[in-house]
Amino acid sequence: VQLDELSIIDRYFRPLAGKGAFGLFDDAGLIAVPRGEELVITTDMLASDVHFLAGDPPDTIARKALRVNLSDLAAKGATPLAYVLSLALTPDLDAAWLTGFANGLAADQKRYRVTLLGGDTIAVPERPVISITAFGHIAAGRMVHRAGGRPGDDLYVSGAIGGGAAGLALLRGEAGPWSALAEDERDALVGRYRLPEPRTALAPALVEFATAAMDVSDGLVGDCDKLCAASGCSAVIRAEAVPLPGGLAGTIDPKLVARLLTAGDDFEILATVAPENAPRFKAAAENAGVPLTRIGTLAGGEGPAKVLFQGTELGLSQRAFVHRRVETAK
Amino acid sequence: VQLDELSIIDRYFRPLAGKGAFGLFDDAGLIAVPRGEELVITTDMLASDVHFLAGDPPDTIARKALRVNLSDLAAKGATPLAYVLSLALTPDLDAAWLTGFANGLAADQKRYRVTLLGGDTIAVPERPVISITAFGHIAAGRMVHRAGGRPGDDLYVSGAIGGGAAGLALLRGEAGPWSALAEDERDALVGRYRLPEPRTALAPALVEFATAAMDVSDGLVGDCDKLCAASGCSAVIRAEAVPLPGGLAGTIDPKLVARLLTAGDDFEILATVAPENAPRFKAAAENAGVPLTRIGTLAGGEGPAKVLFQGTELGLSQRAFVHRRVETAK
Repeated sequence: VQLDELSIIDRYFRPLAGKGAFGLFDDAGLIAVPRGEELVITTDMLASDVHFLAGDPPDTIARKALRVNLSDLAAKGATPLAYVLSLALTPDLDAAWLTGFANGLAADQKRYRVTLLGGDTIAVPERPVISITAFGHIAAGRMVHRAGGRPGDDLYVSGAIGGGAAGLALLRGEAGPWSALAEDERDALVGRYRLPEPRTALAPALVEFATAAMDVSDGLVGDCDKLCAASGCSAVIRAEAVPLPGGLAGTIDPKLVARLLTAGDDFEILATVAPENAPRFKAAAENAGVPLTRIGTLAGGEGPAKVLFQGTELGLSQRAFVHRRVETAK
Repeated sequence: VQLDELSIIDRYFRPLAGKGAFGLFDDAGLIAVPRGEELVITTDMLASDVHFLAGDPPDTIARKALRVNLSDLAAKGATPLAYVLSLALTPDLDAAWLTGFANGLAADQKRYRVTLLGGDTIAVPERPVISITAFGHIAAGRMVHRAGGRPGDDLYVSGAIGGGAAGLALLRGEAGPWSALAEDERDALVGRYRLPEPRTALAPALVEFATAAMDVSDGLVGDCDKLCAASGCSAVIRAEAVPLPGGLAGTIDPKLVARLLTAGDDFEILATVAPENAPRFKAAAENAGVPLTRIGTLAGGEGPAKVLFQGTELGLSQRAFVHRRVETAK
């Protein structure tokens, strides 16, 4: 039995359509931005066995694709509104897979109060690809940029860093300190890889107090470098202060710390706050239920972050996970 | 030599960034919708050797990906504003390819007055995939829907129908009536496949006069069926009236007519207009320089369009090109 694009839309995606989507019966969707607000727009593309594993549950694949976008919106201080979804599907993805995928989206639409605005479905032979563009709104002029950090600002991170990367290592059967953990700890790491937790609840506190913020997706250290470059400053990260996931916290192995701080798949928020606003920022995060830790300070001069561990500079063979390369000459 | 994502953005895409893109140095882009306007949003995903051919010139690949989205905006009456671009790149796409791709976007950005707002670049082994989400603006409440057609409305189409499909047949080496054409006619068909012409200039006339409109992308007959379904009516298409591309016009072969009217890749506008507004609609299209032809009438009852040719109903083995299938059970 085969389903064409129209039947797939009917069965799986039309029930997800919300305001401005016209039941997915039109060429385009419509957003009426409230007066005094602007629209924040972000997009992420995920390929099977690159950004998720082909064997991951379809509901977590869908939710991860949506959540990595919501994570970007949260970092900018925006309130999520809607998204468009394009899907390149392969012949092995059966009705059960599509049902799981759509159910995952439905669950997260409810959780994060977003709706589907439109999309496109195509067929490819080899590898599923998911592209989501997400929309949020924010008071005009209040988007939190990467570029606003100032020397002396405190550097904060939400949640814990490195859990997603450790979960991926477990799923790939790569031996490491994660292998020796208890089963529930290993499950938590795998869950972290499959299902990041966008910090949408932190957005209002970022708008009010952060001088700069970004989503940590490609490794904490490399992403901090990007914030520094945009802000025209540098940073000092105290690696001992960076929260690591349960079971790996408290390690004294500098190689493990270096790996977790540069591996990506965190989808936490890195934010800078002027010290005088720090108490109110921390209180707002606590009220929002988002764990927040001070991990360093922005410094003068322009350059990459200095990462200190055990009283010395941490050796880093790479600063971010660069999984995206293309040949440019032969 | 290999280029990572950041170098690709630096070299090829940063120069395309416009207002609200923050030089592609941030997690998200921003659109401030003018007061009294709404944002129209459309998205299309294109895969290599599905929606374009791997051997097509990279500048036309890029422009086609953008133009199929601009075509949707035009059908809704919207003025193009910006777009986000996600790219899954394969290792064979070298610097020359990326240069051509970016140059194509630059040319069409100028032509259609749009700018790049953001994007994502990933690497995949097998098959390039391009996903574009495009944004246009329109006066609040004035978007042209598929659902507004009424029995008795005149049915119009812009440009000619079937040229893209004939061009693809030529590129694939498929023998047919197109094979016997003169070289310049064959080149024009190939050009039509590679580079559709979005009818952005027709948008104001659609807003003013059309009761319904849509982009013809999957075959004229099947797309007319969709307009009918959305509008709760049916239609009569006089196939002799449908403009065919140069060299194929005036054919008396019903099989060729059936193929051209159901094959897709047209990216023309199908619009319905109340007869009393038809003269002003045609005048507005002429002023805008967009060729426009009346091809039929909306009729009462709900159902697919009836296609007449040589005084009888045209035999159709399919009504649209459905290139998108997925297994749903094994």
